[in-house]
Amino acid sequence: MQNLPIVLGIDIGGTNTKFGFVDREGRCLADGAIPTLGDQPPGQMFQRLHAGAAELLAGLDGCELAGIGVGAPNANYYTGTIDLPPNLSWPWVDLRAELAPHFQVPVAATNDANAAAMGEMLFGAARGMRDFIVITLGTGLGSGIVVNGEVVYGFSGFAGEIGHTIVDPAGRLCGCGRRGCLEVYASASGLMLTVAELLAGNGAPSLLRGLEPGQMTSKLIFEAAQAGDRLALEAFDRTGDLLGRKLADAVAYTGPEAIFLFGGLVSAGDLLFDPTRRAMEANLLNIYQGTVKLLHSGVPEGKAAILGAGALIWNELARAGRN
Amino acid sequence: MQNLPIVLGIDIGGTNTKFGFVDREGRCLADGAIPTLGDQPPGQMFQRLHAGAAELLAGLDGCELAGIGVGAPNANYYTGTIDLPPNLSWPWVDLRAELAPHFQVPVAATNDANAAAMGEMLFGAARGMRDFIVITLGTGLGSGIVVNGEVVYGFSGFAGEIGHTIVDPAGRLCGCGRRGCLEVYASASGLMLTVAELLAGNGAPSLLRGLEPGQMTSKLIFEAAQAGDRLALEAFDRTGDLLGRKLADAVAYTGPEAIFLFGGLVSAGDLLFDPTRRAMEANLLNIYQGTVKLLHSGVPEGKAAILGAGALIWNELARAGRN
Repeated sequence: MQNLPIVLGIDIGGTNTKFGFVDREGRCLADGAIPTLGDQPPGQMFQRLHAGAAELLAGLDGCELAGIGVGAPNANYYTGTIDLPPNLSWPWVDLRAELAPHFQVPVAATNDANAAAMGEMLFGAARGMRDFIVITLGTGLGSGIVVNGEVVYGFSGFAGEIGHTIVDPAGRLCGCGRRGCLEVYASASGLMLTVAELLAGNGAPSLLRGLEPGQMTSKLIFEAAQAGDRLALEAFDRTGDLLGRKLADAVAYTGPEAIFLFGGLVSAGDLLFDPTRRAMEANLLNIYQGTVKLLHSGVPEGKAAILGAGALIWNELARAGRN
Repeated sequence: MQNLPIVLGIDIGGTNTKFGFVDREGRCLADGAIPTLGDQPPGQMFQRLHAGAAELLAGLDGCELAGIGVGAPNANYYTGTIDLPPNLSWPWVDLRAELAPHFQVPVAATNDANAAAMGEMLFGAARGMRDFIVITLGTGLGSGIVVNGEVVYGFSGFAGEIGHTIVDPAGRLCGCGRRGCLEVYASASGLMLTVAELLAGNGAPSLLRGLEPGQMTSKLIFEAAQAGDRLALEAFDRTGDLLGRKLADAVAYTGPEAIFLFGGLVSAGDLLFDPTRRAMEANLLNIYQGTVKLLHSGVPEGKAAILGAGALIWNELARAGRN
């Protein structure tokens, strides 16, 4: 009997690195996590990663490793390197060179949002779609754009940064050094800034008033909004309004069939989707109106990063005709 | 001896329809034009077009028609139809059905900006590039986006409308019914509006002051700027500044290797390119800085529409393995 081919999906984060074995149908057969320890040399992390993964693999009878997919901030699809990853003190990492001593299989890498788009296409709600966009709403805003059934990497390997298109040239300062990026409005941190501005702007009562600095979370804002807090509701409305306006612009670029929202902030559900959908539809050029679906991601949140990284390498293997 | 395969490129405009025969190397062997007469049934136009084209073809010894490409406003690549074309009273035209009685060859259609992108890729300065954007700056602003060597048509067939992304939600009214579209700032008509605003805004002397309504043209503004007129120079600076900012956003979407500017307004040269390049570079996310070329189109202006339409069908024939 032939062994079942599986791939290893790795998601390198600022704090933890998650990994898991994924079969061709998108089942995660086993998974684990280790601390990334980004202040130590990357070689140490890959050694610990190998130890953890090898142990998991030993428990998977009849499976054979066919490839490795990696999702990481600033990972470049063409070069297989991570360049100046935010939240890690590694200046530059050659993923293929780091993995080669441990695993002798093909490796593919991209950033986490592009991996999420790949996961959506192979294992999620975008199955069968050839043109769609995935927006990840976490601390920041990531985006993966799919055109003609392929993730858009661009000439440099860094395409798909809708979070860094400009909402307001005189607006909030962004971590990228510029002002008014969408990411500083439509994200968990953007939502918190909006609440802070609303609290400072008027004296209306709110459940969110009087919190100590650092106590505010998007979860607290969500709970306040659910309890009917007007200020919290207004913050979600403003967030969705700006996001929807920029999604209307995104449609004018690549004309997607659907836009998927994914990530922590999406658990707010209709509180976020309703104003986003309203603003998007109101700002679409007439030829697009009523044609673009705004949907929840179909990839289970907990395993999404591993499944996305796994989907990335499954897609490469399929293109190379290996599996 | 085998006949030389050639294609017919057609550009349907609001006033005139141009057509010409294009070989595989992008040479236009013969071309002509007829009035479109958009207030009469489209069948009449296609009959006159056939008469003109057949006469030209008869003069091309040893050539054989392999296909027809059509560029027209609102032409849909997937359906081969023109839907509610602006400046024509035709509600809906099935291009393949209209051409079938006259020519028994494959037909492909798209809008004029996408055809321009195809022309740039096959016959112009984008040869060998897989990721680039063409911006056509005429009365309005059109755009054709190429990703992975393919024009982006999107799910609906209408992708690539950067002219209808929003510069200012409270800004100038656009022909599309919304406010603040890039097209009403960065285009010949946008430039004229900017001059009108500058003239109304202060009493500074200008060569452009005192023109009768309707006398203003982008050519007069260009000539005034060349003569050192400060107001005209300021108008070009503002136009380039807004265009450059939005091109920085465009880079964040598809990460192109180059952006080509094309069309009447581009004859202003450095007056337009300098402020555009400056604003684009100043507003690029750090990972893109210094990586994107802003270039003149490499397709000769006079024949560009015909060459673009010809390139469209040459590309289809190559994909189908016919030629």
